[in-house]
Amino acid sequence: MTGRLFVIGTGPGNPDQMTPEAQAAISQATDFYGYGPYLDRLNLRPDQRRHASDNREELDRAAAALRTTLAGSTACVVSGGDPGVFAMAAAVCEAIDNGPDEWRSVDIVVLPGITAMLAVAARIGAPLGHDFCAISLSDNLKPWNIIETRLEMAAKAGFVIALYNPISKARPWQLGKAFELLRGSLPATTPVIFGKAAGRPNELITVRPLGVADAAMADMATCVIIGSAETKVIPRDGKPDLVYTPRFTAGGNR
Amino acid sequence: MTGRLFVIGTGPGNPDQMTPEAQAAISQATDFYGYGPYLDRLNLRPDQRRHASDNREELDRAAAALRTTLAGSTACVVSGGDPGVFAMAAAVCEAIDNGPDEWRSVDIVVLPGITAMLAVAARIGAPLGHDFCAISLSDNLKPWNIIETRLEMAAKAGFVIALYNPISKARPWQLGKAFELLRGSLPATTPVIFGKAAGRPNELITVRPLGVADAAMADMATCVIIGSAETKVIPRDGKPDLVYTPRFTAGGNR
Repeated sequence: MTGRLFVIGTGPGNPDQMTPEAQAAISQATDFYGYGPYLDRLNLRPDQRRHASDNREELDRAAAALRTTLAGSTACVVSGGDPGVFAMAAAVCEAIDNGPDEWRSVDIVVLPGITAMLAVAARIGAPLGHDFCAISLSDNLKPWNIIETRLEMAAKAGFVIALYNPISKARPWQLGKAFELLRGSLPATTPVIFGKAAGRPNELITVRPLGVADAAMADMATCVIIGSAETKVIPRDGKPDLVYTPRFTAGGNR
Repeated sequence: MTGRLFVIGTGPGNPDQMTPEAQAAISQATDFYGYGPYLDRLNLRPDQRRHASDNREELDRAAAALRTTLAGSTACVVSGGDPGVFAMAAAVCEAIDNGPDEWRSVDIVVLPGITAMLAVAARIGAPLGHDFCAISLSDNLKPWNIIETRLEMAAKAGFVIALYNPISKARPWQLGKAFELLRGSLPATTPVIFGKAAGRPNELITVRPLGVADAAMADMATCVIIGSAETKVIPRDGKPDLVYTPRFTAGGNR
């Protein structure tokens, strides 16, 4: 008799942006697996067990949660944001795919959450109002030349680009290189949004034109959104500018 | 003295997937603007005013909400899913951009929601586990040739593709044409997920290989997710298959 494995997202970190569905899963589960700072967001009861692990141990963490579930417990794997976007749901699937057959029998329930780009976009207007893509800038996960190709094709195709994992101590130059590349395909006036800790007390949202966008404005907790050539800025007196990408591109049927 | 304009998303339709933050905005607002079926999800009080309008009147709806707010009320513009993804936040910004100067003084608060692709992805595993894009298939909003270019570049770049607005009575052939195009760049075995009404009582999630994917399986309430060449299917006895896109592409540093 196996238990159930919830795979949830906390949203960006503001508890009011976590869904009631994820909240209900948290109150049912007995064993929690995730990166420590994400588990800290949960206010667990004393009878709930906390299994914190480092940010780069996703597969081991998934395996531990699957074993606990097979032993009959209700486990909960916790991601920040949405568990399906550059997060633990794929790691759990990967563990199942490569693990013992019995792991396929586990009752898996993935519950969606507010992913960083949606939270950042909301704070500034509607930069994701038309076609867009999400790219992880981590070359731990794929070769850098694939990232370059994706950035260039995305800019040429006219997608707004949301960058996850833009920078870290071990990956200091990649974001600057991405800006440099994109300056070759996009106008220097294209708005770049640096969204740090959206919705949290230390939130900081900054907009710079691509021509002068500086990678030093980002850190590990930043989601960077780069507009398309269509993206517009609305200046407002005494209020932050709004940034949006129009729903229409000239030439549609309407 | 202007009021405040909330722009919220209900999520996919399951009330447990609406954030407490959006729920709090609903209880504060007096005037609600949106497509009727989305307003129906809110359980408004008798003292709250409902201004329903048709699905294709977004700009008029945004203008009406802005005028109400300038007159001192707290208005709420309601989208399904996330308001920033092919939805009302961009229409509100567009109205402000092209409207009278005083509209720029309105206090706008956009609150994110669970967008359809995240809800659908969660029900099937983690198809958006690596780089992906979101494309509206509506050629009311942009010329069809731009859509074709984006589809082809997205497939070549290796993005998983989430299609919004895949089909309607007025746009019956576009999704079939998109599948036809993508068969030229992606393996016939690439999983295609048809996610209808995810999280709602009439939910129907179906997976077909691209080679035999049929546009007739989609309707207006469907979000279609097309895998990349990396996307995998995990068959499970007596349980639905899991579909995921691995976090790694061969050649990364890890």
